[in-house]
Order: sequence, then C-alpha cells, then structure tokens
Amino acid sequence: MAFAELPVERANRLINHGPTVLVTSKYQEKANIMTAAWCMPTSHNPPMVAVSIGVTRFSHELILKSSEFAINVLHSKLLREMWCCGTKSGRTNDKFSLCGLTPVVGKHIEAPLIGECLGAIECRLESHPTAGDHSIMVGQVLAVWAKPGVFDDRLRVEKVDAQTLHHLRDKDFCTPGKIVKI
Amino acid sequence: MAFAELPVERANRLINHGPTVLVTSKYQEKANIMTAAWCMPTSHNPPMVAVSIGVTRFSHELILKSSEFAINVLHSKLLREMWCCGTKSGRTNDKFSLCGLTPVVGKHIEAPLIGECLGAIECRLESHPTAGDHSIMVGQVLAVWAKPGVFDDRLRVEKVDAQTLHHLRDKDFCTPGKIVKI
Repeated sequence: MAFAELPVERANRLINHGPTVLVTSKYQEKANIMTAAWCMPTSHNPPMVAVSIGVTRFSHELILKSSEFAINVLHSKLLREMWCCGTKSGRTNDKFSLCGLTPVVGKHIEAPLIGECLGAIECRLESHPTAGDHSIMVGQVLAVWAKPGVFDDRLRVEKVDAQTLHHLRDKDFCTPGKIVKI
Repeated sequence: MAFAELPVERANRLINHGPTVLVTSKYQEKANIMTAAWCMPTSHNPPMVAVSIGVTRFSHELILKSSEFAINVLHSKLLREMWCCGTKSGRTNDKFSLCGLTPVVGKHIEAPLIGECLGAIECRLESHPTAGDHSIMVGQVLAVWAKPGVFDDRLRVEKVDAQTLHHLRDKDFCTPGKIVKI
C-alpha cells in the first residue's frame, strides 16, 4: 500500500513515543538499512529529528558521504526483518534482499524508503555531533509519509495495523498497550 | 521506597524503549523539573544519554549554568504530575511542591532525583549541540538508580508497577502492552 504525505511539522508524531526505527541511507550505488532504537525528534521549527549511530557502522559512512537519510517506522509484525537489519552488515550484504524488505523511491532523497513500514521521514543531514562512540545524526525534515489508516493527527498505535516496536534489551521488545489521556 | 543502584552501563535500558521522562536540574538554590518526550541513549562506551530541550526553557538555563542534570523515568500513574511539570514554568514556581513530587538527594550531582519515579540517571553535561529550536543536552552517565522490583536486567514494563508513559500527541499517551521476543 502506498504512503500518503503528511506536513513536515508532523514528523515528530511518528517517533514521539520512542519506537525502534529502520534508518535507510544511500551513497552512489550502495544503499543500506540499519536498525536503531536511539532516535528522537529534536526541533519543532524547523522540524528536525535525530538518530544516534555508532561511528563504526556502515550506515554512519553512507550518511556522512551522502548528507541524507530516512527514518522508517517499524510495524510490530516486522520483528524478523528488523532483527535481520540490526545483526547483518550492509558492507557485504544487500539488506533489502537479505532481509526481505521493499525499497520505495522517496521525494527528496536518493536513499530508499521501506515499503513495509508504517511511515517514513526523509531528512537532509544538518549536523552530526559526536557523543561517545556514536554520532548524533541531526536531520532537517524534508518530507513525512504514513500508510493510510495508521495516522490521524497522531499514530493510532491502539490499532493492530499501527503497532510499533520498542526495544527493551537484546531480543526483548514491547508493543504499545493502552492509550491514556490526561 | 528507596532506589537501588545499577551499573552505569545499564542507563540505556531505562530509556531504550522511548518513555517520556522528567528532567531535573539545579543551579545555586533553584531546582526545577521539566517533562521531556525527546530523550535517548547515545553512547555505550562511555555510557551517555541525550535529551532535547527548548532553548527558551528555564531548565535549559539551569543545565548550562550547572553542567549537570538527571533523567527520571515516569511511572504511568504519575500522569497528572507529569502534565503539571510540562505545563507550568519553574521560573515562577517550585515544581516539586506545585506538582506534588518528592526531591531525593543524588550521589554525584546537586540536582535532586524524583522519589516517585521508577528510576533515575545522574549526568554530567558533556556537550550541548544546537538542533533547530532545541539544544541536545548530552550527558555522561554518573549513576543509575531503579526502584526494587521494576528492573531485572531490563525494565519490567509488563508489571503494573513498572509501566512507563509514552507521548503520542498533546494529551494522548500510551503505556507498554505485550512483550515480544525475537
């Protein structure tokens, strides 16, 4: 099912509740996917998001060389694909074919989006401050996408079709439970 | 109930799944609490965490002046206290008394921890790169604390006593649901 475009100001609402994401990147002919639990919005105006990536990772190199990346929000049913993307290296594998995910052409960047995901955020790399053994990749939001039915002013995580994955430890994750309102 | 100390390497497992947190800070006699949904781990070695704070916030000023802060992990039952901390300003209020939270003395920093929270991470400010209208406060982890029973190599979010809060939009939050394992 195709993505529908959302305003760039809504990027934060795809990741505000802390889901594990897939980061896509591409430089020249080499595209990659990486699993990342360390991701957050970081600015309203202009809309920006940040993802922390280990300095030795292949995706780190691709993002610095291309100055762009995408954040793809996982559906909980993609548990095995997510694990594949987080445990294999893209230096020696094509992660899309290896992990069974479908590349989708974005609007502003060369890095592909992931067709099976709930939504995606296309980003231009704005800065990449070092924090210990990771770089914080700060991206200005260029476009935001969501599957029809999963987003209605917020991610509808109470629906089976819009459940995200949240990483607790090693092989342990949780999915969203109840909605609570103040 | 008092906190038990965890190794600093476990800091990431308090916030890895993306919970909304309370950030505490103190400079001279002025302490403050701020609600923050934009928080993530950012380094394994040394252990570091990051929280994104609006440049106009009172906590932004206190953290830059004191070079320290704490991340306190909310229990879902603290919904009203969390909302109070996120909507009132500490410039003109003592948030601890206004919002009904108990300051607890930390081990390494002057900023108080919050007695009602599930756990806390004491941090020394390592850097504060700008990202749009926020600063990313990067903290080196000095100490990690959790309530007895809520942490057993990971946060036990499947227990009622260890449920976190995750911000979706405005007044809408979710709590963790099922544990899924790969």
